[in-house]
Amino acid sequence: MTPRDSANTEAVHRLAAADPVLVDVLPLSEAVPDFDPRTVLASGASLRWEGYVGGQRNGILGGAVHEGLAENMADAADKVASGQIQVRPCGDYRCVGSLAGIYTASMPVLVVENRAGSNRAFCNLFEGVSRHRLNYGVYNSDVERNLCSLRDVIGPTIGEAVRAAGGVPLLPIMKRALHMGDELHSRNTAATLLFTRELFEPLMQLQQRMPEPVKQTMDYLRSSDYFFLRLSMASSRAAADAAHGITGSSVVTGMVFNCREFAIRVSGLGNDWFRGPLPRMAGARLFDGFTESDIEFMGGESTFNETAGLGGFAQAAAFPLQEYQGGSAQRMVEANLAMYEITLGEHPELRIPYLGFRGVPIGIDIRLVVEKGITPVLDIGVAGKDGGQIGAGSFTASIECFELAATAYAELTDR
Amino acid sequence: MTPRDSANTEAVHRLAAADPVLVDVLPLSEAVPDFDPRTVLASGASLRWEGYVGGQRNGILGGAVHEGLAENMADAADKVASGQIQVRPCGDYRCVGSLAGIYTASMPVLVVENRAGSNRAFCNLFEGVSRHRLNYGVYNSDVERNLCSLRDVIGPTIGEAVRAAGGVPLLPIMKRALHMGDELHSRNTAATLLFTRELFEPLMQLQQRMPEPVKQTMDYLRSSDYFFLRLSMASSRAAADAAHGITGSSVVTGMVFNCREFAIRVSGLGNDWFRGPLPRMAGARLFDGFTESDIEFMGGESTFNETAGLGGFAQAAAFPLQEYQGGSAQRMVEANLAMYEITLGEHPELRIPYLGFRGVPIGIDIRLVVEKGITPVLDIGVAGKDGGQIGAGSFTASIECFELAATAYAELTDR
Repeated sequence: MTPRDSANTEAVHRLAAADPVLVDVLPLSEAVPDFDPRTVLASGASLRWEGYVGGQRNGILGGAVHEGLAENMADAADKVASGQIQVRPCGDYRCVGSLAGIYTASMPVLVVENRAGSNRAFCNLFEGVSRHRLNYGVYNSDVERNLCSLRDVIGPTIGEAVRAAGGVPLLPIMKRALHMGDELHSRNTAATLLFTRELFEPLMQLQQRMPEPVKQTMDYLRSSDYFFLRLSMASSRAAADAAHGITGSSVVTGMVFNCREFAIRVSGLGNDWFRGPLPRMAGARLFDGFTESDIEFMGGESTFNETAGLGGFAQAAAFPLQEYQGGSAQRMVEANLAMYEITLGEHPELRIPYLGFRGVPIGIDIRLVVEKGITPVLDIGVAGKDGGQIGAGSFTASIECFELAATAYAELTDR
Repeated sequence: MTPRDSANTEAVHRLAAADPVLVDVLPLSEAVPDFDPRTVLASGASLRWEGYVGGQRNGILGGAVHEGLAENMADAADKVASGQIQVRPCGDYRCVGSLAGIYTASMPVLVVENRAGSNRAFCNLFEGVSRHRLNYGVYNSDVERNLCSLRDVIGPTIGEAVRAAGGVPLLPIMKRALHMGDELHSRNTAATLLFTRELFEPLMQLQQRMPEPVKQTMDYLRSSDYFFLRLSMASSRAAADAAHGITGSSVVTGMVFNCREFAIRVSGLGNDWFRGPLPRMAGARLFDGFTESDIEFMGGESTFNETAGLGGFAQAAAFPLQEYQGGSAQRMVEANLAMYEITLGEHPELRIPYLGFRGVPIGIDIRLVVEKGITPVLDIGVAGKDGGQIGAGSFTASIECFELAATAYAELTDR
């Protein structure tokens, strides 16, 4: 076995062995004690402030206002420009951003611990079914009211329930959900239900002490099928972080984008992000009245899920997504099978029934991507130019960042 | 359009239009006021007492003892033989039997109303995950204790919750479950979860008044993935009953078996059951230590589900069943597609994602079965010779009863 092979074997092993458990829900500032409260986090590799545009810029400013760091959007823009408010990538604090990926100090985050690697990752809460959400680049009084409810009611109540339950192991839920039509990125219907069932008893116990928060929390959990996405994202980030930093490994340990660029990091290549153009649409279904020209990228780190074998890497588990993001069952199977071409392993627990219970493909090898010219398939939500969600779809990553990383890898190992 | 065509169109329409709603859980004697309490119901077309053997005979006797109609099994056998206790088919009271299909007066039944046809059907409660259950031909002190808990705690508590909820519409649950890996016969995992979620709030409300029954009921609902089977069975029976009795229709409106025979009824052929040999095993997975020679048929009317387009008619919605009943995804797709060959319609709401959201095949036409030599595929639980469940599998109906029915149909329409 070459040093590269053994390094990659270790990376795949760590991805496969991750054992994510939701242990708490806490304000970000408590989950990450060294978090500077005058900070707003955003998805993707770091950009200078001038680089942020459109919805992602809007989201950052809205987050600053929500947190009380600025009076209004204009004031926030001034303070960011002058450095009184800093903008940092989510990953600096082991957070994983959804779309714009806005985090501020008081926002509640799901605390997911990887019990195999003893590392933690964090994700904030799904904002609900409104098309207008902070993470889709919108900030207004409805969005603010909703963020307050998440901070003051939903987050603390779920936190109490999770602590009362002694934590909620997520791998068993993810495993079952893949047998129930979820690929755990664009579809989290079964996982959300399974997770909700785990909370039912602790919530019932809490009911006598705090009936109204429990009612609101139940309504929130019932109102959509997406709650679990934030848990699959934190789980995937925790698994990818555990697999990161192995000398000699050419395995991808992160895929993210900001409003301008897609970027990847590689286990054996330190903390550099290799940047390239944004992903291209492979098949998407936009809500009525929208066309491809309405699409705006405003960031997103939910593609950590693909890094860990979910989403586009598990499409053959989720045929109902044809309806949501276009395409056919056959095309989904083909796209899924192609991902085995660029990965080094298969997950021992997370399996796809249609493929004879084959494990999801894990351990994307930058060399295989470049050699075969096949790039990761990404199942992502689609934002519109005026903010808000306008659809969802299947995208393919651009190859440039993999080429850059492969070059860096070759230089490093040639030395 | 020939008279037969229009009669069949009406039958298919009634199967498609059925709108099943769980409206209550009641003791059988309250759900069916004319039920004679000295009666035990059993699955399948009627048999003389001497005809009942093995597990089904055992179940009947156990039911009589449970109901207090006899001191013990021997006493029960004497009283049945002398006519003091009567044995009747479940269908005489619009009940639908699981395996042995034992019903007695005090047993709680799910009351399912077809709001399109204004007819009702009843099914008793899943006995839980023990391999030893009355409906698998076993009666002992554990089984008795469990039946008492269903009668005294679980049934009444679910009944209260269902009434508080104003009834639970089942079609939306069934529709979603087909997108979540269920075919609603051998797999009811998603439907059970979705149904449980509907009861969360009413159970939470009941908790203060009756904490212990609510806790036991939650434990019961959480303990398995099969609760919903009884609801899909009652829904299917209600739909099939609505489609029954249309003059000139050659559509199958019931498939059942007792311990000796498979039998079908046909919409336009009155209340006769056309009998033939038991189904043949197509692919089954038996629990460790059991072989095909251990299989014993002890009845079953869950094949009403196939009559209504579920189970074997929706296998391509439930690839995880490969694990449970053997086979491959490809074979499941082929088996499912074959069912379109012998049916006259497709359900407008109940759809299969893998088949491009094609509606499940409904309206089995006896003439097509005989003409093409393709018989219904049935996903059923498998009982063992000593009682108890020993596996599950996919079976194919024997053709003889369809031939008998086709002959009767020809005679009737030639007259």
